[in-house]
Amino acid sequence: MRMYDLIMKKRNGEALTKEEIQYMITEYVNGKIPDYQMSAFLMAVYFRGMTEEETLAMTLAVAHSGDMVDLSGIEGMKVDKHSTGGVGDKTTLIIAPIVASCGVKVAKMSGRGLGHTGGTVDKMESIPGMQTSLDREKFFEVVNQTGLSVIGQSGNLAPADKKLYALRDVTATVDSIPLIAVSIMSKKLAAGNDGILLDVKTGSGAFMKTVEDSIALAKEMVSIGENAGKKMVALITNMDIPLGYNIGNSLEVIEAVETLQGRGPKDLTEVCLQLAANMLYLAKKGNIEECRQLAEDAINSGRALERLIAMVEAQGGNADVIRDTNKFAKAPYQREVLAEKSGYIAHMNAEGCGIASSMLGAGRETKDSVIDFTAGIVLKKKTGDVVKEGDVLAILYTSNDSLFENAQEQYRNSIVIMEQPPKEEPLIYARVTPNGVEKY
Amino acid sequence: MRMYDLIMKKRNGEALTKEEIQYMITEYVNGKIPDYQMSAFLMAVYFRGMTEEETLAMTLAVAHSGDMVDLSGIEGMKVDKHSTGGVGDKTTLIIAPIVASCGVKVAKMSGRGLGHTGGTVDKMESIPGMQTSLDREKFFEVVNQTGLSVIGQSGNLAPADKKLYALRDVTATVDSIPLIAVSIMSKKLAAGNDGILLDVKTGSGAFMKTVEDSIALAKEMVSIGENAGKKMVALITNMDIPLGYNIGNSLEVIEAVETLQGRGPKDLTEVCLQLAANMLYLAKKGNIEECRQLAEDAINSGRALERLIAMVEAQGGNADVIRDTNKFAKAPYQREVLAEKSGYIAHMNAEGCGIASSMLGAGRETKDSVIDFTAGIVLKKKTGDVVKEGDVLAILYTSNDSLFENAQEQYRNSIVIMEQPPKEEPLIYARVTPNGVEKY
Repeated sequence: MRMYDLIMKKRNGEALTKEEIQYMITEYVNGKIPDYQMSAFLMAVYFRGMTEEETLAMTLAVAHSGDMVDLSGIEGMKVDKHSTGGVGDKTTLIIAPIVASCGVKVAKMSGRGLGHTGGTVDKMESIPGMQTSLDREKFFEVVNQTGLSVIGQSGNLAPADKKLYALRDVTATVDSIPLIAVSIMSKKLAAGNDGILLDVKTGSGAFMKTVEDSIALAKEMVSIGENAGKKMVALITNMDIPLGYNIGNSLEVIEAVETLQGRGPKDLTEVCLQLAANMLYLAKKGNIEECRQLAEDAINSGRALERLIAMVEAQGGNADVIRDTNKFAKAPYQREVLAEKSGYIAHMNAEGCGIASSMLGAGRETKDSVIDFTAGIVLKKKTGDVVKEGDVLAILYTSNDSLFENAQEQYRNSIVIMEQPPKEEPLIYARVTPNGVEKY
Repeated sequence: MRMYDLIMKKRNGEALTKEEIQYMITEYVNGKIPDYQMSAFLMAVYFRGMTEEETLAMTLAVAHSGDMVDLSGIEGMKVDKHSTGGVGDKTTLIIAPIVASCGVKVAKMSGRGLGHTGGTVDKMESIPGMQTSLDREKFFEVVNQTGLSVIGQSGNLAPADKKLYALRDVTATVDSIPLIAVSIMSKKLAAGNDGILLDVKTGSGAFMKTVEDSIALAKEMVSIGENAGKKMVALITNMDIPLGYNIGNSLEVIEAVETLQGRGPKDLTEVCLQLAANMLYLAKKGNIEECRQLAEDAINSGRALERLIAMVEAQGGNADVIRDTNKFAKAPYQREVLAEKSGYIAHMNAEGCGIASSMLGAGRETKDSVIDFTAGIVLKKKTGDVVKEGDVLAILYTSNDSLFENAQEQYRNSIVIMEQPPKEEPLIYARVTPNGVEKY
């Protein structure tokens, strides 16, 4: 087998066999296939796409390039959730406790933030003492004991994906739907869960800008998971506006706690209830209506919040800040962003808001940047709200007041005020299952 | 400027600016742009193509990556010819002397053979003593003295093309018409001639398999040359059948001499007269009819053959073998290939015939292979001929009789005998000038 022939085949629009894909991934990881051949192949995939069989074969080959996590040491059905990334997306911290409190184990490996999107692991580390890097034994122990554990990705998970992603990142081949599906699903399959809920974010703050692309990506991923023997559902959710009102690490944990206390923002609460209901549905806890009721009860009874506290303590964190969020460290500097004219907030560029938060110190510009856990933004007005000139649009927080100027300008440029109210967009656009697409 | 953005631009179907292309080629040659980015770009070009402006800019950038030959030391108008490569294509050895004998200087750098196609330089080296590697001074001296000189490519001509071609060769991006045009024309522009005649071979023995693709390639190249200030014509010629009857180095020189003696095969003579007429036309020796007459006179008068003899002697060759081709060394072994059934030769796979010749020792499998100048094939029957079972189809020649078996099988598999005669194909399909395409 020669890589040259595989590039030619794909370039000419033919499908590769399972064996050819396995060969390609193995030899690429071994350094036998050079980057310049792989990048030509990836660009050919950008133009030609891949069949369902090819995408599955590539996902499995990439997953098996490293460790396949064995979660059999955890009793019961394990359900994972994956978000394609957004701004103000603190849903994991809310739904993992909800689901765990309903008797479904959540053994989740999460990522760190990079660029304009935050990462759950960074958010958790804003809780004093919180450990996010546990060995397997301890990870299983926390899940068995508290029903859930969220840790950083550890071990040698899908190394082929790391190598492929680094190459795609510099060759303009990131935004290919089959390649995105392979990248996400290879890590999810390696992580060893029985069911996977995908939260495909859509809009100005998401990687996928249109509902159509999001549905296409969701269908690919659901199909891969289903064919690999996993229970699969995907929700296409709105990320044209930041989710909730808080952006930034400890600010998002605070909002997550408020949501588990039943006093969270309406949009965030609603998205979390639907995500949690679908995870419970994957774990066979009933039909969607029944599962939604379970999720609501988990919040209203306080059981979900108890689970979060239990996990924080089991992972070495100081749960006092969860019990009383006023105990979180506060940013020493804050500044209001005021409306420069009256009207409606017609549009928020969610990515722009995320970048503003990152500029305040909440995010990473490079992998080695140090995060300011207290930095971020609290929105006061969101898309559709009426504003008067001089109203507070948002409050910016940081530990370094020299960062305000640029972040404020960035934030202001992300907000469009107009005379007419915008069209209202749904929170959830569609639900994709192996049986098809239900549009909402 | 970042290569990433240029890949993205091309991938999205946008055109690069002249400055962007210049940057890309310069930095690639300098090693600042890695192969894995360039191969992704080349694959994007395969799918998106390039505009006329882009192709011109890239050709100029590639040409200027090395030496630009200055032919001003040679008096008068200099006209070059380039063939895209074929089997039995000895036209340079015939038309360069014709054109020179009509007072137009030919200062030509030629290539060596690789794979199934031969190279003029190898053919010339089958003449005892013939030097094909002259320094600039000697090259000019030979041209000024005899009217023509054909030498191997020397100096640092279009090094960017060498690097790009090596990459395309392993990333399945060779057969992109704009990239082929850039590759050919960059070397032609660097070679410094005033006029360029392109012979775009078409059919089973050529790189371009269809007339449509050949015309598309010819149009691109004529446009590049025209925009770079050169006089340009392209002929689209038939390479579905080997040209003439002889394949192999000294065998082709012999057939070229016979053609200059006015007793060459009809197809070869006709193609050479048309090619020579067009070169003379580029050198403003009259209209096409007048130029054709000049070419015929050059053969009939013996003046063209005199020019060949003069060049051979000026380059150190023993012209006795030209004056009497029986003096060429002969292959010690020969074997006939017989027809296994009666009928018409319905099709010859010209590439297959070229490979058979190469297998006998006439060609190179790798750059370092040593050529057997006496090896090759003399065809006895060609497409359209009637054959009876047992007729001699061809005679194979070699210095190593262990090579017969495979070469004979290869040759036989390249010949298709059927009951019905094939449709007759023209020798020349079309002529492409800056004014448009004339189909023949």
